[in-house]
Amino acid sequence: MLDFAEQPHKRKNLLTGDYILVSPHRSKRPWQGQVEDLAPDNRPQYDPKCYLCPGNKRADGTQNPDYKDSFVFVNDFSALLEETSIEQFDEENLLIAESERGICKVISFSPRHDLTLPQMDLLAIKAVVDLWQKEFRELSAKEWIKYIQIFENKGSIMGCSNPHPHGQIWAESSLPVEIEKESTQQKAYFQQHGRTLLQDYVALELKKDERIIINNEHFVALVPFWAAWPYETMIVSKRPVSSILEFTEDEKEDFARTLQELTIRYDNIFKTSFPYSAGMHQSPVNMGEHPEWHWHMHFYPPLLRSATVKKFMVGYEMLATPQRDITPEQAANTLKQQSTIHYKG
Amino acid sequence: MLDFAEQPHKRKNLLTGDYILVSPHRSKRPWQGQVEDLAPDNRPQYDPKCYLCPGNKRADGTQNPDYKDSFVFVNDFSALLEETSIEQFDEENLLIAESERGICKVISFSPRHDLTLPQMDLLAIKAVVDLWQKEFRELSAKEWIKYIQIFENKGSIMGCSNPHPHGQIWAESSLPVEIEKESTQQKAYFQQHGRTLLQDYVALELKKDERIIINNEHFVALVPFWAAWPYETMIVSKRPVSSILEFTEDEKEDFARTLQELTIRYDNIFKTSFPYSAGMHQSPVNMGEHPEWHWHMHFYPPLLRSATVKKFMVGYEMLATPQRDITPEQAANTLKQQSTIHYKG
Ligand SMILES: O=P(O)(O)O[C@H]1O[C@H](CO)[C@@H](O)[C@H](O)[C@H]1O
Ligand SMILES: O=P(O)(O)O[C@H]1O[C@H](CO)[C@@H](O)[C@H](O)[C@H]1O
Repeated sequence: MLDFAEQPHKRKNLLTGDYILVSPHRSKRPWQGQVEDLAPDNRPQYDPKCYLCPGNKRADGTQNPDYKDSFVFVNDFSALLEETSIEQFDEENLLIAESERGICKVISFSPRHDLTLPQMDLLAIKAVVDLWQKEFRELSAKEWIKYIQIFENKGSIMGCSNPHPHGQIWAESSLPVEIEKESTQQKAYFQQHGRTLLQDYVALELKKDERIIINNEHFVALVPFWAAWPYETMIVSKRPVSSILEFTEDEKEDFARTLQELTIRYDNIFKTSFPYSAGMHQSPVNMGEHPEWHWHMHFYPPLLRSATVKKFMVGYEMLATPQRDITPEQAANTLKQQSTIHYKG
Repeated sequence: MLDFAEQPHKRKNLLTGDYILVSPHRSKRPWQGQVEDLAPDNRPQYDPKCYLCPGNKRADGTQNPDYKDSFVFVNDFSALLEETSIEQFDEENLLIAESERGICKVISFSPRHDLTLPQMDLLAIKAVVDLWQKEFRELSAKEWIKYIQIFENKGSIMGCSNPHPHGQIWAESSLPVEIEKESTQQKAYFQQHGRTLLQDYVALELKKDERIIINNEHFVALVPFWAAWPYETMIVSKRPVSSILEFTEDEKEDFARTLQELTIRYDNIFKTSFPYSAGMHQSPVNMGEHPEWHWHMHFYPPLLRSATVKKFMVGYEMLATPQRDITPEQAANTLKQQSTIHYKG
């Protein structure tokens, strides 16, 4: 019998088809390496130099409106541009490239410079969810857009260059690498079983109850069996909907509640503003029906041992296989033990 | 015609089959985010507290020999263990795992605590190459070992917890994720063309001469057309050998020379000890012949704009597709312009 808590082992990620390596005995390793700076957390409610605060000027001279909840605009330094002609490049089938068209947007989650998602009230989080749905609807109305990536980089350790709470949306003309992988895996499962992969996976996780963090009427938050990052989690809708477009009012409220509770639990683990990259995976758009696609949201947080010691996905991980020390079950237990009241009160 | 230097585009990685996204116009973006600490570089030649220095005691009480060039031992905190029984786990085809057997070793590159590869002389680097070959031979003599990953994490920003120059070898009982991908791609090409993928790719790169950094008798160092990290490079042997086992004396010398020159060029870009994760990809062992496998070594360095500002592979990159700002051609030009004499003289 494989002993998850003692034996080095691999686990299969059902969504990508790839494996991850678990080295449970390795958590005893002492750490003498890099320690992250803790940015002092004494931000004002309004920062006159912040390009996201209401009324301030942005890089291109535009003035932000005096907005009251969330606010969205096209990124002044977009990685993808709408005015991109479609070109192909192929030299001897060895140098292969094609242009990529897209739109990059920034969403300010709140007019308050000093908040983060876990510190916002439920109504304010619900307003962000509404905006995500509205943006998804509007962007998918453009025929050339095939995929819409909604995400957030939280914390400077995750490359976030402005502490004002915000997320991003990159919409583009072809399917990203991770979406291709998850499409393949979900399609194969759906064709064989007539149910979505995540429907059956979540049902099994609920039965076992070893990795479930939150279970409310419409959503489940859990540490996936194949989590690679120390405290990686996934929010999954109970109803097999293929995108946020299908969320009802009730579901949007429950989703806001789930987001709030999960991020509060994160902050409480190390009594710090828990950094992560998080984002929704959902069906491609303008490419027909995708009943195999089951909406979900990934959280990839880097912290491992403390507020300042992270997991490094480096040499072996980049060249071979992602590797983790604590087991997904240990991480789930830690998350379950946290209070649902934010440590800052 | 696709304009690589101006238009956002995707490029195909021939070795993995996956795409990367290039946003050339984006290098103008200002940076207000996280800046890395520069560790002061005044290390002594010998540090009595370092577990890699000659004669010192390690975690388990063993004393290091008074070694003169390089030195190898089993990692005191191995992620993989030789004494692991083979077990399978499968619950409803949804929770899938298996145990993984392995050996993790540490290689000290030099008795000198204060050096790094680019600061070592050619003979000392050649001694490291000899040791890599010897280790590969000895580990592959164990029938249960199927793959041997030789790598180095350089710099605290890459999770390296001891500045004494060293690398690692993880040998294991199954094929890692990246090796599976590269096997698939190389096998498909070899079956179709009867030559290795990298043989034809390198021939085309030599003809175009747009991304070549080093070209000596036996090796080429280049920025791959599909590089994801800002200054990512690859060393490829000109002869299609499937592993370091086949390197002749001449090739080992030339490889040492290539390593030295490439890492000196890296250090000279920002006049800093250039961090990276690097490692060889080579044929599986004890699994029959692999004529499709062409030995190569990847360098994944994180720095982007300066000695303290790195590229963050975060939200969009983790959830969708790896993304880069400067083009591979720009990176190759910068590397080519560097002196081959180390800035420290
Ligand atoms: O083995 P080390 O140097 O202690 O640890 C380093 O390299 C390993 C292999 O890439 C990683 O798993 C660790 O996260 C990193 O800190
Ligand atoms: O768009 P930002 O916040 O300026 O930049 C951040 O997120 C992007 C998308 O994940 C990354 O490409 C950048 O490396 C990161 O610093």
